[in-house]
Amino acid sequence: MVAPLLNDTFLRACLRQSTDYTPLWLMRQAGRYLPEYNATRARAGSFMGLATQPDFATEVTLQPLERYALDAAILFSDILTVPDAMGLGLSFAAGEGPRFARPLRDEAAVAALQVPDMDKLRYVFDAVRSIRKALNGRVPLIGFSGSPWTLACYMVEGAGSDDYRLVKTMLYSRPDLMHRILQINADAVAAYLNAQIDAGAQAVMLFDSWGGVLEHRAFAQFSLAYTQRVVSQLQREAGGQRVPCIVFTKGGGLWLEQIAATGADVVGLDWTCDLGQARRRVDDRVALQGNLDPMVLFASPEAVAAEARAVLDSFGSPRRADGRLGGHIFNLGHGINQHTPPEHVQALVETVHAHSRSLRQAG
Amino acid sequence: MVAPLLNDTFLRACLRQSTDYTPLWLMRQAGRYLPEYNATRARAGSFMGLATQPDFATEVTLQPLERYALDAAILFSDILTVPDAMGLGLSFAAGEGPRFARPLRDEAAVAALQVPDMDKLRYVFDAVRSIRKALNGRVPLIGFSGSPWTLACYMVEGAGSDDYRLVKTMLYSRPDLMHRILQINADAVAAYLNAQIDAGAQAVMLFDSWGGVLEHRAFAQFSLAYTQRVVSQLQREAGGQRVPCIVFTKGGGLWLEQIAATGADVVGLDWTCDLGQARRRVDDRVALQGNLDPMVLFASPEAVAAEARAVLDSFGSPRRADGRLGGHIFNLGHGINQHTPPEHVQALVETVHAHSRSLRQAG
Repeated sequence: MVAPLLNDTFLRACLRQSTDYTPLWLMRQAGRYLPEYNATRARAGSFMGLATQPDFATEVTLQPLERYALDAAILFSDILTVPDAMGLGLSFAAGEGPRFARPLRDEAAVAALQVPDMDKLRYVFDAVRSIRKALNGRVPLIGFSGSPWTLACYMVEGAGSDDYRLVKTMLYSRPDLMHRILQINADAVAAYLNAQIDAGAQAVMLFDSWGGVLEHRAFAQFSLAYTQRVVSQLQREAGGQRVPCIVFTKGGGLWLEQIAATGADVVGLDWTCDLGQARRRVDDRVALQGNLDPMVLFASPEAVAAEARAVLDSFGSPRRADGRLGGHIFNLGHGINQHTPPEHVQALVETVHAHSRSLRQAG
Repeated sequence: MVAPLLNDTFLRACLRQSTDYTPLWLMRQAGRYLPEYNATRARAGSFMGLATQPDFATEVTLQPLERYALDAAILFSDILTVPDAMGLGLSFAAGEGPRFARPLRDEAAVAALQVPDMDKLRYVFDAVRSIRKALNGRVPLIGFSGSPWTLACYMVEGAGSDDYRLVKTMLYSRPDLMHRILQINADAVAAYLNAQIDAGAQAVMLFDSWGGVLEHRAFAQFSLAYTQRVVSQLQREAGGQRVPCIVFTKGGGLWLEQIAATGADVVGLDWTCDLGQARRRVDDRVALQGNLDPMVLFASPEAVAAEARAVLDSFGSPRRADGRLGGHIFNLGHGINQHTPPEHVQALVETVHAHSRSLRQAG
């Protein structure tokens, strides 16, 4: 018994169908800028405590929806669950980023790598089911994964990096090892996203957070090719509904046409791109998601509203002069910053909904 | 008495004149990857000890030329000398990046900011004179500065940053304060570069290292407009010779046409851009500098050579089918990494010179 979807604006925009307004959600919308999130996290003991216990994951996933009229929920989880299930030993030290106890540093480690048993990730699929139930049809739920390349960066570096020296050294010195990691990652990510869809995710997003650090030919060979390998393996329908796929490459603005050709329904953009230009470049063959600079949210609510209107105006009316429809999902160009004043997010949400309605009436 | 220039290949390529081969130099070519640099630095006591004492600055500037057949020297200095001369109190803690004791955090600090007396930067101009003398016409000397926006990032943040929250908060909340800082920075940078040219710099480069973190409209208003303000104030001739101006915006590939329109002779590119596409976009109205990923230098000399050839091939022959000339200066897309094996640089230099000669013979 699945509750009917009460607000399908997000899914319709992903599929370039007509909508009354521009839907929005925010990357990392369930996060540390919300006091209620911090309270739940304190009870759970840690970030991974939230992610691995479906009741906590459900609670924090729904928190931003209680405050704001957001048009989608996104699974509360981490992009590094898959390499953790591969046995690399994920941990989060206080005040630091993620770290792997057993990074991939030699041929033997790469040779031993395998697509993990999806049963090790059951806590994620349980969270998806629990969140769908709690949402009760209010808005759609987005599932997600790190991209094969972005996972490989962490798996080889063992942590975040300023210069990606270890992973790029492997890429340039031993492309055979890098391709093996990426093949396994792609097949694991595809299985992971398909299991999320089976559990109830109504859209999926691939975060290629570190695609933009690659040289342009290396991006095509080592990131894009494996994004495509994931997309081509995804089930694109569930329960008679199309399941949209979003691909977001931070810093990938130069490669927009190539990313749009992977088969994704939606391409995510950071704030370096002009949405109007991006739309012309892809000729509305895909919907676009983005792209407010999250730092705008530190300015006054009036300034936030002005910048949000500028983003909507740069995309323009979804309906083109020739009658075809484009699709725009409003979002930030990166995750919301932990120091963001929550009341500024309220101004953003109201402006996006109101201004995008008026754009449609004017158009 | 100035010695005649024995190798003008770099200057000719900057001005899109014919050359026998593609000249190259490397950002941060005098740096920690060279054992002789580390030895001199130990004698000088610190990084700023090298930069502020013309004899030491001269010694380290010439070190890479002793090892490699590079086609230009670049002044050994730091991009933050100008804000230091403004009184912000620059220091380098061991193992960390630069830090300012008195960052610009309020209206009073911004109101007090002024173009510094260039006499406070005399150590830089003395170094330029000393290096020119020591070079004795061997290759041209490049002077440089941080761009107004990049300096402002450090001046407001007080140090490097992951998210540029403080400087972007000022930009979005108090654009009037940000514009005041940038005007002063632009006029200071122009005076600084002109004094370097007076002292003997034969080309100048603006490093807009953090331009790429800006939203696309903010880039035009807060970075590009002030780069243009600098370029328009530069003396473009000295001693009867044109002084080429290079503008390098890391992460600025999407804005290439705009950067090329600032009046710069050369636009620097990072490795995310395809040089051939970039060349078509600017239609050879400017020369291009770049753009090997510095991490390539961690691969084998054979792999280094293959990647270097690919960069040269993507630019192609400087002479076009219609007879017009483009210009290419080979460089990395970012500073050379401190862990780079010096012998791999040898392979790079030899390949660039040999392969670019053969491209010209084939073309």
